Amino acid sequence: MSEGRSIGAVKPATMHFDTPLRCASGASIDSYDLMYETYGVLNAARSNAVLVCHALNASHHVAGYYDDLAGTGSRKGADNIGWWDNMIGPGKPLDTDRFFVLGVNNLGGCFGSTGPASINPATGQAYGSSFPVVTVEDWVEAQARLADRLGIARFAAVMGGSLGAMQSLQWTIGYPERVANALAVAAAPKLSAQNIAFNEVARQAITTDPDFHGGNFYAHGVIPRRGLRLARMIGHITYLSNDAMMEKFGRSLRSGSVNFHFDVDFEVESYLRHQGDKFADYFDANTYLLITRALDYFDPGAAHGGSLSQAFARAQARYLVISFTSDWRFSPLQSRELVKSLLDNRLDVSYAEIDAPHGHDAFLLEDPRYHALVRVYFDNIFAGL
Amino acid sequence: MSEGRSIGAVKPATMHFDTPLRCASGASIDSYDLMYETYGVLNAARSNAVLVCHALNASHHVAGYYDDLAGTGSRKGADNIGWWDNMIGPGKPLDTDRFFVLGVNNLGGCFGSTGPASINPATGQAYGSSFPVVTVEDWVEAQARLADRLGIARFAAVMGGSLGAMQSLQWTIGYPERVANALAVAAAPKLSAQNIAFNEVARQAITTDPDFHGGNFYAHGVIPRRGLRLARMIGHITYLSNDAMMEKFGRSLRSGSVNFHFDVDFEVESYLRHQGDKFADYFDANTYLLITRALDYFDPGAAHGGSLSQAFARAQARYLVISFTSDWRFSPLQSRELVKSLLDNRLDVSYAEIDAPHGHDAFLLEDPRYHALVRVYFDNIFAGL
Repeated sequence: MSEGRSIGAVKPATMHFDTPLRCASGASIDSYDLMYETYGVLNAARSNAVLVCHALNASHHVAGYYDDLAGTGSRKGADNIGWWDNMIGPGKPLDTDRFFVLGVNNLGGCFGSTGPASINPATGQAYGSSFPVVTVEDWVEAQARLADRLGIARFAAVMGGSLGAMQSLQWTIGYPERVANALAVAAAPKLSAQNIAFNEVARQAITTDPDFHGGNFYAHGVIPRRGLRLARMIGHITYLSNDAMMEKFGRSLRSGSVNFHFDVDFEVESYLRHQGDKFADYFDANTYLLITRALDYFDPGAAHGGSLSQAFARAQARYLVISFTSDWRFSPLQSRELVKSLLDNRLDVSYAEIDAPHGHDAFLLEDPRYHALVRVYFDNIFAGL
Repeated sequence: MSEGRSIGAVKPATMHFDTPLRCASGASIDSYDLMYETYGVLNAARSNAVLVCHALNASHHVAGYYDDLAGTGSRKGADNIGWWDNMIGPGKPLDTDRFFVLGVNNLGGCFGSTGPASINPATGQAYGSSFPVVTVEDWVEAQARLADRLGIARFAAVMGGSLGAMQSLQWTIGYPERVANALAVAAAPKLSAQNIAFNEVARQAITTDPDFHGGNFYAHGVIPRRGLRLARMIGHITYLSNDAMMEKFGRSLRSGSVNFHFDVDFEVESYLRHQGDKFADYFDANTYLLITRALDYFDPGAAHGGSLSQAFARAQARYLVISFTSDWRFSPLQSRELVKSLLDNRLDVSYAEIDAPHGHDAFLLEDPRYHALVRVYFDNIFAGL
């Protein structure tokens, strides 16, 4: 498979904003930085820009790799290679020889954009728990301001998976005239009760960790490692399908037999602990709370009496919606509900349900049918530029 | 529905054992108590006894109610009504006018039988982390000794749901001549990697709670509440189906709108916190570790090169296996694997897959088709006594 090349070594940039951002909550962020990366060249007509929105634990570092982590917002333990590098690069499905690709670390993040770990200029202390609860709508607003500064009036496409897909949908609702195409992969138009429940357990793990200190742990020189570990372990279970876990780990034992203790016996235990430990090294606990809350709150139909169709009444984009059969976190049913609402508005929608065994994580993997579909979709966008 | 009456007020009894129990781990428990309850009358032929095995958080208190919690092993917060009271009583599917029903709190439990919170006579201190890791096989061995003392050479049936079903299966493997019928409801012949993963997160929540003190928290006058709460919250998500959660909670908000905080906004959050708090009040953290480990380790096929069919080679019982379509914790696929292994041995098996929306919890609920099936099955057993 792996057609195309890596974009190679990349570097992020930072844009500073001094106009206060009024959040959905009513709170304001007076000034802030957004860290972002761009790949490819913006054409003369400024018509080939594609915004790629990130999900829970990712960032502006979408493709390519870092020669040096210094100044990139990444911490040891985070991946050095862009999180969607298999999708984006020269000759890849989203071809950086054709498109100008923009990745942004969302506000409240922990990879270089202003977030809870940043110093609040008003107090000289880390924001901590005083950082406003931000929403998908707030992120899109901040991304739109960045687009303004970069001279992008309209995106050829806004694209994302999971929480990133929510942002691509919100773009078409909030800025219908600024998005030609929206790609929503492994999407949900709103979380189910079960989704919210998993987020709540993860948040409770963090906030009840004695090292959380009400969100102001920075001042105490500690981090709520225990809570972050648990949050990540829970997350990982929901990113994989039961079948994928059986395929990957089964009931394999590390030492060939059980040891009648509560330490690691099964390979799956070792995997989860490792993922949890790694995550706790590089992710900010307050950012985790903010991002899961943004997921919980996203519900564009709520402002229209529960009608998702009405939420898209002003939308103009064309859509590519892709779901994966084994994704039980954001199941195909949720994508179908979305597709129905788009069709209710006679919007141009392509929908594919990919028969993939990997669960929610499938959106990050290099499934040939999935990547071929995205490639063709972008070919068509390019042909129409 | 609710045919039949409550057995009324009941009282548990305690049996003391002085013969050391050698566990599968190689460790021994020198002496121990088992707390149990019986309902109905053992007939002259001693042929109408039914053992009911409990799952994760239940006990010997299977049916009826307590007038007074003192001496029952139950603590404030635990249910006063037997956990399978809708199934067992005079005129109920398991009819105590016909059968002599026995419920036992398993060894390592926290409702009256010897467990980690009990005083180790050898040290004068609570067992804590020194309590042996017990298995389903160990529990069945202890139950068999209790049956001996009660004069029950052979059970008309051994019955259980979830982890209780594993015990009923193990009875037919370990004591084939002592079980006429096994009822395995919402069963799994072994846990999947995903099942183990959820157990592992729950255990990590408990063992990383600073109040756990390596399992010896009794001496510190604390309990690992935070860990127990999280363990129970995770458990509750897996006991319910996604549909049942949507039906029960949906995205309902406690105060009608979101409040941009990390406290309770959604009803499902309130429910989980309440369940977690209640559980932490009455359940022992070390028992939680032991019971989830017994679940992980149960794998009767493992001793036969992975062949579940060979594990049942000596079994003689007749079986009733019941699964529920929406149970994703112990899915119908797992019951079908079990049924296939039983049929491979030409054993007499009835299997029903009940189309129920409630998830794993369905085995505790009063579904008319499910209860009618159990009733008819016991009618037939009674007719053959």
